[in-house]
Amino acid sequence: MNAPQNVEVPSKLLSRRDLEFMLYEWLDVASLASRARFADHSRDTFDAALDTCERIAEDRFAPHNKKGDQNEPHFDGERVHMIPEVKQALDAFCAAGLMAAGQDYDLGGMQLPTVMEKACFSYFKSANVATSGYPFLTIGNANLLLAHGTREQIDTFVRPMMEGRFFGTMCLSEPQAGSSLSDIKTRAEPQADGTYRLFGNKMWISGGDHELSENIVHLVLAKIPGGPAGVKGISLFIVPRKLVNPDGSLGERNDVALAGLNHKMGYRGTVNTLLNFGEGKFRPGGRPGAVGYLVGEPNKGLACMFHMMNEARIGVGLGATLLGYTGYLHALEYARGRPQGRPLAAKDPTAPQVPIVAHADVRRMLLAQKAYVEGALALNLYCARLVDEEKTAESDDAKRRAHLLLEILTPIAKSWPSQWCLEANSLAIQVHGGYGYTRDYNVEQFYRDNRLNPIHEGTHGIQGLDLLGRKVMMDAGAALQLLGREMLATAKSARETGDAELGRWADALAAAVADVGETTRALWSAGDLERTLANATVYLELFGHVVIAWTWLAQAVVARRAIAEAASDDERFYRGKLQAAKYFFLWELPKTAPQHALLRSLDATCLEMCDEWF
Amino acid sequence: MNAPQNVEVPSKLLSRRDLEFMLYEWLDVASLASRARFADHSRDTFDAALDTCERIAEDRFAPHNKKGDQNEPHFDGERVHMIPEVKQALDAFCAAGLMAAGQDYDLGGMQLPTVMEKACFSYFKSANVATSGYPFLTIGNANLLLAHGTREQIDTFVRPMMEGRFFGTMCLSEPQAGSSLSDIKTRAEPQADGTYRLFGNKMWISGGDHELSENIVHLVLAKIPGGPAGVKGISLFIVPRKLVNPDGSLGERNDVALAGLNHKMGYRGTVNTLLNFGEGKFRPGGRPGAVGYLVGEPNKGLACMFHMMNEARIGVGLGATLLGYTGYLHALEYARGRPQGRPLAAKDPTAPQVPIVAHADVRRMLLAQKAYVEGALALNLYCARLVDEEKTAESDDAKRRAHLLLEILTPIAKSWPSQWCLEANSLAIQVHGGYGYTRDYNVEQFYRDNRLNPIHEGTHGIQGLDLLGRKVMMDAGAALQLLGREMLATAKSARETGDAELGRWADALAAAVADVGETTRALWSAGDLERTLANATVYLELFGHVVIAWTWLAQAVVARRAIAEAASDDERFYRGKLQAAKYFFLWELPKTAPQHALLRSLDATCLEMCDEWF
Repeated sequence: MNAPQNVEVPSKLLSRRDLEFMLYEWLDVASLASRARFADHSRDTFDAALDTCERIAEDRFAPHNKKGDQNEPHFDGERVHMIPEVKQALDAFCAAGLMAAGQDYDLGGMQLPTVMEKACFSYFKSANVATSGYPFLTIGNANLLLAHGTREQIDTFVRPMMEGRFFGTMCLSEPQAGSSLSDIKTRAEPQADGTYRLFGNKMWISGGDHELSENIVHLVLAKIPGGPAGVKGISLFIVPRKLVNPDGSLGERNDVALAGLNHKMGYRGTVNTLLNFGEGKFRPGGRPGAVGYLVGEPNKGLACMFHMMNEARIGVGLGATLLGYTGYLHALEYARGRPQGRPLAAKDPTAPQVPIVAHADVRRMLLAQKAYVEGALALNLYCARLVDEEKTAESDDAKRRAHLLLEILTPIAKSWPSQWCLEANSLAIQVHGGYGYTRDYNVEQFYRDNRLNPIHEGTHGIQGLDLLGRKVMMDAGAALQLLGREMLATAKSARETGDAELGRWADALAAAVADVGETTRALWSAGDLERTLANATVYLELFGHVVIAWTWLAQAVVARRAIAEAASDDERFYRGKLQAAKYFFLWELPKTAPQHALLRSLDATCLEMCDEWF
Repeated sequence: MNAPQNVEVPSKLLSRRDLEFMLYEWLDVASLASRARFADHSRDTFDAALDTCERIAEDRFAPHNKKGDQNEPHFDGERVHMIPEVKQALDAFCAAGLMAAGQDYDLGGMQLPTVMEKACFSYFKSANVATSGYPFLTIGNANLLLAHGTREQIDTFVRPMMEGRFFGTMCLSEPQAGSSLSDIKTRAEPQADGTYRLFGNKMWISGGDHELSENIVHLVLAKIPGGPAGVKGISLFIVPRKLVNPDGSLGERNDVALAGLNHKMGYRGTVNTLLNFGEGKFRPGGRPGAVGYLVGEPNKGLACMFHMMNEARIGVGLGATLLGYTGYLHALEYARGRPQGRPLAAKDPTAPQVPIVAHADVRRMLLAQKAYVEGALALNLYCARLVDEEKTAESDDAKRRAHLLLEILTPIAKSWPSQWCLEANSLAIQVHGGYGYTRDYNVEQFYRDNRLNPIHEGTHGIQGLDLLGRKVMMDAGAALQLLGREMLATAKSARETGDAELGRWADALAAAVADVGETTRALWSAGDLERTLANATVYLELFGHVVIAWTWLAQAVVARRAIAEAASDDERFYRGKLQAAKYFFLWELPKTAPQHALLRSLDATCLEMCDEWF
């Protein structure tokens, strides 16, 4: 269908109205400009950044999303080849200075708040999650080195990354060690000059080899011989693909060789590699072993890596969210344009067909998608806002609170969108019917791309263990209690609107807070670690639904307050927010009731299932 | 990993032990041999048929499953090309006489009961759902013509199909008419000789063009000009790809042209086409128009087509089930062979890693898969057994009861496996971790293949409308009441085992029966058709979970009775059945509680959501 003339075609990447609602009406991002770090900023500079990103994402990232999927990177034994549009898009990204958007001015950055950076980058994830993988890995890598690297490491590796000349990776997994990092075998042998030589194989390395940048900075977990067994003996190293001379020019090739590419169901444009370190294919200084530089202290590498990992987890959640979001907007457009069937009450077969959005079950699928993707985006932006609080809040107490909330919310921010925005993608296919199952449309790719997200950067099961086994128990439950207080504060604001419906949702959220506390206590009362943690995944899923209900109540409060004086376009927007909140409270949150009951029973059905009974 | 010598490698297609449990221990299929139609049969002939199918499926269908996915059919403008293994597999299928397995002896058939036919064919669906699409469409087509065609039509078209010389299709959808068959535009113009000439376009036609058989028999819905509007003016026609001379030899090409292929996310080996009828590319008798032969009476075509459609719906459910089943067996093998991590209670990093099946959360994912796929298989085989009852039961009353149960269970048998065995495929990927997301393993393909099943042969939403809007209300609720009585009878047997746990599950099922009745009444008490049916999908999902709980209680009763005297291998098998039943009653059935509450509230959140609020 052609759009009528003079009517702007709405973006299918992301709703700008929604983004502005979350940033300015809910999270009060404009007020960050009052802080010293962001003093040069204002809503105008924020909007300009969003404009730039939307434009580059639409013009350079979205157009090759399908082509990148259909022409995945390949390795000819010497080089990795990929479609040229990837480099063109990344060049435009770097040329706009976006690689350093959140960094200090003295690194060439813009000192954009993290919440704005994530909002801006949402456009790229929505337009092309695979191509956007390269800069986001690079930024995470740089952030780790800025926190834990030496001045020299920052100058040598971070500055070129910020200029877009070097890209970065994270090298944790090995073929025999995925979730169990304790079992990595890559070893780092100390050299007389203070450097190390690394030997080993790293698996699942995204961006591990390509011709997109002058150099690749691998951050590699390895063990220094003689160190403690397990995770306590893991150290972190910078291992560049090419060595860097003291003057910053590139030297010889390091002993890092591409052993092969992984061929995935989706997310195909992000090259994913098996790398061999120290196999001797390249011999820097005439001998085998990949030259590496220790980051931080020996045997403390995992803690450093978690700096990048935590950022990557929220990044995975945001990517999952945006795949769901763009799928939703595609489904909405299709539902408005596809005539099929007639209202139940007016079945006259000679009457024209109605667009499928007129059918209640199609609206159900669209409303569910809206509730999932906007709820997930709210959580991800809230987390990004917490990063700004953690860094720039006025008081140490405020910083500590932000830190605690981030700790407990990270597994949710990673897992919930990975589960429910994938479900949104499935619903987007369903709205399209048979067409959605074909590669002529875009939604099947979103579904394939998104299926990675419950796996990488800590599987769903690992997130559950992190939440139940670590985060809710840390500091004697401080994070859990703080989160509960935040939720109750939102419930209070909801009651203060005087709206009876919001009052009921506030009661439901308050009850959910109490129920989570009770269920957590019940789980930990067993005195049987194995039994408690056998329930961790259900706990994660339940907890996630409560958190998203909270983000919906917070959005509903803003919408309810604004609606009275809203212009008609805005009024429709706020009505949609309130209806999606209603959907979440009536259709989704009640799903947690049987989960609470199951968890409180400390059920051991799965634990007691024997291998030989399968 | 290599299997130890002298140990048989278990099939990853289907558990023969499970199939025999369902057929012989639960459904008492051997007793069918006492009926006249099956008098030549016995458990020996049934087992021989299973052996044959397992062997052909393993040898001819499974080996090209991935190759068929990676090399989908293509059209060069003249012919459709596909990998040669497809025809080789189908030739082996036909040579074994399987195309006519369920048919009368005088059609060259084996008079195998439908339940055995479906059990046998399960191997092919599991091995290669795409290649097995061709014969199963052909069999459905033949069954329709045997029920509604003339003697001459049967001789001309069905006999060659039973010999494997002709294949069949069903042509319902058009580009503008998918779920809304009322809107088909293909017209059939009557000719002086009693034949018709058809003109129109048909979309989503599986098996619509290929070189696998001598001829293709299309069953086409079309409208005879001057007939009533809507579905009441739809007639059914046989339209062969090539005309058939009176002596059975092939004549000239009919005016059916391939307009293009659809390129799907999965299920790629089944060629899916857009066909043009009567565009004049071929001109039988020198003029345009596809020659068609009316089946049954004019304007009564949709009822005839539903003969094939109902069979196809159960077939879709069975295909979804077997994709889930083989995925489960793949995940189980992987979980037993992949070392990763250590028990929570023994984290010594120097101890060897354990296979991941040792982790409770992995067992949870495997047990969920087992509960979904074996529950779904039980339902599908139960439905197939009902087809035998409907055809061959001794009393008319027994036939009528079987018919009613089939009517109400068909939407469940189609939709539940499409939803939950797809979820099983997602869990199979998750068990594999990153490896499961790569095309080096098989599970990602099962997931892609299975995503079609909630769409074709009536979407999930259409099944919900069929169940709530038609099936539970038909004959004043006769089918619903009968199903409830059957469930309560199973609950009674469960109590009679004297096992306290089975007694609790029996109580839960009895409560569920009462709850479904109450919820159905509440939904229909609204006096507002639109509001009632806006809830149809949730009703479908709830209903499905109750039905599957019933199949699990029935299996548990058999297992509980058998376990006392079982040999050790069998004991482990029965323990697995009981544990999966327990999982379903404790983890799955309770999910229906909030669904009941939502439905009884006659919630209108989705109905009241306006298009412009999105």
